[in-house]
Amino acid sequence: MLLVRFFPREFNFFDSFDAHAALAVEAAVFFRQLVEKGEVDEVALGKMQTIEHRADETTHIIIDQLNKTFITPFDREDIHALAKQLDDVVDTVATIVNRLKVYNLRGPNKNLIEFSKVIEESVRAMAAAVQGLRNVKNSKVIAKCCVEINTLENVGDSMRDRVLAELFEIEPDPIKVIKWKEIYENAETILDICEDVANVVESIVVKQA
Amino acid sequence: MLLVRFFPREFNFFDSFDAHAALAVEAAVFFRQLVEKGEVDEVALGKMQTIEHRADETTHIIIDQLNKTFITPFDREDIHALAKQLDDVVDTVATIVNRLKVYNLRGPNKNLIEFSKVIEESVRAMAAAVQGLRNVKNSKVIAKCCVEINTLENVGDSMRDRVLAELFEIEPDPIKVIKWKEIYENAETILDICEDVANVVESIVVKQA
Amino acid sequence: MLLVRFFPREFNFFDSFDAHAALAVEAAVFFRQLVEKGEVDEVALGKMQTIEHRADETTHIIIDQLNKTFITPFDREDIHALAKQLDDVVDTVATIVNRLKVYNLRGPNKNLIEFSKVIEESVRAMAAAVQGLRNVKNSKVIAKCCVEINTLENVGDSMRDRVLAELFEIEPDPIKVIKWKEIYENAETILDICEDVANVVESIVVKQA
Repeated sequence: MLLVRFFPREFNFFDSFDAHAALAVEAAVFFRQLVEKGEVDEVALGKMQTIEHRADETTHIIIDQLNKTFITPFDREDIHALAKQLDDVVDTVATIVNRLKVYNLRGPNKNLIEFSKVIEESVRAMAAAVQGLRNVKNSKVIAKCCVEINTLENVGDSMRDRVLAELFEIEPDPIKVIKWKEIYENAETILDICEDVANVVESIVVKQA
Repeated sequence: MLLVRFFPREFNFFDSFDAHAALAVEAAVFFRQLVEKGEVDEVALGKMQTIEHRADETTHIIIDQLNKTFITPFDREDIHALAKQLDDVVDTVATIVNRLKVYNLRGPNKNLIEFSKVIEESVRAMAAAVQGLRNVKNSKVIAKCCVEINTLENVGDSMRDRVLAELFEIEPDPIKVIKWKEIYENAETILDICEDVANVVESIVVKQA
Repeated sequence: MLLVRFFPREFNFFDSFDAHAALAVEAAVFFRQLVEKGEVDEVALGKMQTIEHRADETTHIIIDQLNKTFITPFDREDIHALAKQLDDVVDTVATIVNRLKVYNLRGPNKNLIEFSKVIEESVRAMAAAVQGLRNVKNSKVIAKCCVEINTLENVGDSMRDRVLAELFEIEPDPIKVIKWKEIYENAETILDICEDVANVVESIVVKQA
């Protein structure tokens, strides 16, 4: 058990979390534009990787500062969870983009476009909830965002059930079933992670009430 | 780092964990009856969702009270882990039921029936282990339950290997392979989660020894 | 919240972590030899299970001692994470070996052999990083190992993308696609877990800086 740690050196966790959430929004917007276009080329893959690496770096900086800092604006495990989950959002978006390329899936897919819009909405609400942490006393904004995120997660569950049922019913090619099943499930997972973020944000608010 | 938190307001974690585990038992029994019948209709799906929502609510109440309470009957991270894992048991049962419907799988499947019986046994042992936490001094009951859970997890591993080998050997339709592979693997996962619960329960006992 | 715990009873966490990491190396070496040979028989399966059980036991001993010990050489959550991740490395190797048998996959597969070599390298670097924890002041060794692990994780990502793209392009049998997709993804997951270990090791170093 360590008792000696550095004192805070002007590191602002709020700024880092906002930057992290902004990268998640950037990833979600880029993802929506990409699936609307329906073509993942090398340039798009490169741009996605750039966003992913910046999110990785931001995660590392937050964890590193957490390890060096004794006094934090909220519980250490919540900072850890938030950094991990924001990173997971970007990683999962990047995984889908990567698989669209690896599986050579071309042309706009209406189900994935629909998913990408719900994902963008949820990630924007998530970023607003994270920003709300700067002022937990005004927790109405946070509560509104979290309700929206929960609603969108339910929407995503229904979408996944509907598109999977359709896929298994009408797609005769098992290889295509394997590919799209994975992509739809990953899309829904992003909405689950946004809900995890909402849960942590709500925990932080409750603890400071 | 937060130092100010509410003092306990008569919240009884043991009651909540028992209620949570009882929902897991309810889910496991319902699941076994459902796969014996071999037909997931809208009514069954609705009932499963009701159990799932009640488990979700119980999880939220436990986490919420944990966040508001300074003194807890056992380590905070163990309370968090238990609440999460009990929820995961119910969620994974609900996922299988949902997929049986989405994949339009009808008729009793002898392998899944066999799995459902092992799951019910393990979930009942898990509930007994959780109940045992009220009196850790009498840790013999807990130890007996945990041994049973571990044994059933090994049984589940062997079952999964056997039914997967059989599925891949005799099922000519790749679409059916995809569907049943997922369902069998989720069934085995429930036994893994019960084992995770047993590990946390054993940790709590050791810490209080 | 528990305040009373046993004082350390000469338990050496470093020795246990080294033993744990040595089992991971043993698993990785055995795995590489096995896939080079291209045949998983009952004897090989038994040997793999033996390694897996010893890793399980080591994990349990570490967690058990952690629960009984008040003063630990580094943060409790880092000990917990390390024990869990080292176990996950061995478990995931064992899962692949098990599936090669269950799926009746025979004959050397050049992609899997390539993966097994990268896995062995990464697990060896991971073991060296863990051993480096005995003397965090000499953190250059640890840093070198962690850089290597990160590099190998990137190598693994590229390999997975390449072999999956190839698999989906040239394999006409969907059943074989299902089998090999799972095996390649599990292989890459091992490299991810090694990276998780590296991240925890780096956290420990930073906290003690």
